[in-house]
Amino acid sequence: MLEILIKDEKNTPIYLTLYRHIRDAIRNGEITNGMRLPSIRSLQMQLNISKTPIETAFQMLITEGYVISKPRSGFYAINPQAVLPTKQNDIYVDQEIKGINCPETQPTIDFDPSAVDPHGFPIRTWNKLMKEALENSSMDIGKYGDLQGEFKLRAALADYLFNARGVHCTPEQIIIGSGIADSIRIICHLFSNNSRIAFEEPGYNLVRKQFVMNGFEVLPIQVGEKGISVHDIEGRSAKLAYITPSHQFPTGCIMPFSEREQFLKWAINRDAFIIEDDYDGEFRYIGKPIPSLQSLDGYDRVIYIGTFSKVFTPALRMNYTVLPQKLLKKLKESSYEFTSAPSRITQWAMISFIEQGHWYRHIRRVRKLYRKKHHKLIELIQNNFHNHIKITGQNAGLHLQITVNTNQSTETLIKSAAEEGVIVYDFKNMWMTIRTEPFPRLYLGFAGVSEKDMEKGIELLRKAWLPYLQ
Amino acid sequence: MLEILIKDEKNTPIYLTLYRHIRDAIRNGEITNGMRLPSIRSLQMQLNISKTPIETAFQMLITEGYVISKPRSGFYAINPQAVLPTKQNDIYVDQEIKGINCPETQPTIDFDPSAVDPHGFPIRTWNKLMKEALENSSMDIGKYGDLQGEFKLRAALADYLFNARGVHCTPEQIIIGSGIADSIRIICHLFSNNSRIAFEEPGYNLVRKQFVMNGFEVLPIQVGEKGISVHDIEGRSAKLAYITPSHQFPTGCIMPFSEREQFLKWAINRDAFIIEDDYDGEFRYIGKPIPSLQSLDGYDRVIYIGTFSKVFTPALRMNYTVLPQKLLKKLKESSYEFTSAPSRITQWAMISFIEQGHWYRHIRRVRKLYRKKHHKLIELIQNNFHNHIKITGQNAGLHLQITVNTNQSTETLIKSAAEEGVIVYDFKNMWMTIRTEPFPRLYLGFAGVSEKDMEKGIELLRKAWLPYLQ
Repeated sequence: MLEILIKDEKNTPIYLTLYRHIRDAIRNGEITNGMRLPSIRSLQMQLNISKTPIETAFQMLITEGYVISKPRSGFYAINPQAVLPTKQNDIYVDQEIKGINCPETQPTIDFDPSAVDPHGFPIRTWNKLMKEALENSSMDIGKYGDLQGEFKLRAALADYLFNARGVHCTPEQIIIGSGIADSIRIICHLFSNNSRIAFEEPGYNLVRKQFVMNGFEVLPIQVGEKGISVHDIEGRSAKLAYITPSHQFPTGCIMPFSEREQFLKWAINRDAFIIEDDYDGEFRYIGKPIPSLQSLDGYDRVIYIGTFSKVFTPALRMNYTVLPQKLLKKLKESSYEFTSAPSRITQWAMISFIEQGHWYRHIRRVRKLYRKKHHKLIELIQNNFHNHIKITGQNAGLHLQITVNTNQSTETLIKSAAEEGVIVYDFKNMWMTIRTEPFPRLYLGFAGVSEKDMEKGIELLRKAWLPYLQ
Repeated sequence: MLEILIKDEKNTPIYLTLYRHIRDAIRNGEITNGMRLPSIRSLQMQLNISKTPIETAFQMLITEGYVISKPRSGFYAINPQAVLPTKQNDIYVDQEIKGINCPETQPTIDFDPSAVDPHGFPIRTWNKLMKEALENSSMDIGKYGDLQGEFKLRAALADYLFNARGVHCTPEQIIIGSGIADSIRIICHLFSNNSRIAFEEPGYNLVRKQFVMNGFEVLPIQVGEKGISVHDIEGRSAKLAYITPSHQFPTGCIMPFSEREQFLKWAINRDAFIIEDDYDGEFRYIGKPIPSLQSLDGYDRVIYIGTFSKVFTPALRMNYTVLPQKLLKKLKESSYEFTSAPSRITQWAMISFIEQGHWYRHIRRVRKLYRKKHHKLIELIQNNFHNHIKITGQNAGLHLQITVNTNQSTETLIKSAAEEGVIVYDFKNMWMTIRTEPFPRLYLGFAGVSEKDMEKGIELLRKAWLPYLQ
């Protein structure tokens, strides 16, 4: 049995010493790939320490990808070159994926629709701006600041949103938050909690859940090729609608101009409001980016939500909500407390990032990067699958919807893909009603995958699915 | 009339160009202190631009302290050496303070209880760790990460909390959030919304508000010299209690051991839970820090909440909640979505900050810094006011409670102080019921004030209040 001896380092917590020791041993080959580690119990006895630091150290090793836990078997070391991506609480993860044991030595190619390209992140510039932000605002570091969000950031955003998405608003109308849930909370506060909200079906489950948790009645409206149709809402007493018109989530379709106009008419006639979640609206690969729905709205009916998670990084946890003037007024009069502004340092860095022009340059750069990846993935699918796979939801955003010509279920496709080390998504949580479709639909993100991995991944998918295609 | 000419800078938004122009003119004296700026309307005509960028520029100048707005009069330039502290949405701001026009040339001394000492912030180390965090985790920057909070941070916190506050928990029991409102949201989710919660009176209004907004029935329990008494809760059907035992907010009293024991007994007998908000528990100036209530709890009854806002900086927007095992289990089974974890980059930097020992050093340093300031403020008050002012709530935390021997109201005391350029707080929003007290009670924070300003501030208070003292 492998014996682990750790030096008693003063001042360093035991869990940390143990974690580092095992990690270093795996890295330098002392503990080889696939080797079974001592059980927690035996380490307790070997090291004469309590269970908790050992469990903590093991959990850290698993999180970092050095160890895998096999139920009813034990803990096994993993070759660092075969680090599994962390799947804990990944935003779209399907329950089934979590339970699959990937072979330790096979790298996993993950077409995660929520990931962005880490290489697109401007590390040096961001570092520099964070540093400057801290130094220039050092006297402000002791205070909470404006809980609606730093004014200069809201000003810079108002300007950017007008130029890039046609959104017309003043800085006062913008609320900086830590994510979409903050936006939804604000909206739930503004509307009484037995309100009925028309919701895209399939639609973003995290948002739908927030509404349900806040006592709203969710009305699922089937998404067609042009998004949802306002005809399906008329006469249904909904005073709110949640839509993703730039790139429907998850199907990817784009709501055309005429449908947008009809939606606005409905909202005006009904004294209703439309929530436009423009989560990846900056990315359009054919023609110019479509202006936001809000830009067409002359009657203050649209609540516009955007995020830094796709264009920049989900690691930042920063988004924004633009309220129509009358709703802003209502919010202020209700003495709503803003409780979720993100780190001021992050906001200060972003202010400089936008004011100094880096933001526009960054968007152009990643748009180009993603356009290339988008075209590449489509090409690979077409070359490998021909007409066995139909691609939709393309030309915008960071993921595709594929329909596979097979009589197998999505579960089978996902499992067989995972056995080859490829992760694709069925997004089944996005449906509220029973999901019926003639052929299985799956979702592939391309932003977080390198082109090399894309090639490998689609090859492996072909290998996995060939027996099933008709 | 002052004419403002701005160059049309390509690619720079108009609001920004205008803001910089006016700011630079004020800094270099071209626009002198007290000079009235052109109205928005006249600038519209001069510059032939729309109103919005002008309003934005003016708002930024006000926020940054270069301009003051006098109702029904106009906008006036301020000498940069007389920059007013930003009062927008400051966390404890009283409505009255906002309406007071401070003379432009007099510096304001703000005994803000929510501010921390900016000089205590380890800028260089934090910069270095943020930079390292970004570089070491660059491949992770494309993902959302663990929405409960990065595991390594929870592990480091579990270890720290045990050593520093006696809190016993595993990393799994910790949830990293963006502030107290997140903690309260989790708790509201765990308890049905017609639950009754015993709440300190006076007590932290932001938290009370969250409970009210979530449909809870708040039972105000009068705070005595030892905090609230469990006798006042018995028989009141409350299943939850919110307390700040280390340093009652706002009165500052410390709950003694016997009272803590009684509270735990109550919770065990009633199958109730106690929310311990240990917001400034690291700061105790006489004797050792008192261990947390949670450290005495052998029955899993305490929900422990802590924050980085006092020990570190409120600019970070990061806090944590430690749930008892059974509540954690309940949370996970209810498929609660964690939506408010803060920036991953911040978390990564904090992991290193703690793991490398900077955190412990930092706490020792700021504790020493605040102890000095605490003693200084008490000394100044005693020397200037003798027995006209009684100090309570001292020996812990970052603010004091003072009771002034006068027949004037708190409003009068605050106004007269503000006229001398000193801001003190009455915390009137902390009371839910009618506040009756024989003598006015006020609150002074000392963390965010330099010792020099403290001296000046107390001198000015003496000048302001002398006529009123008896």
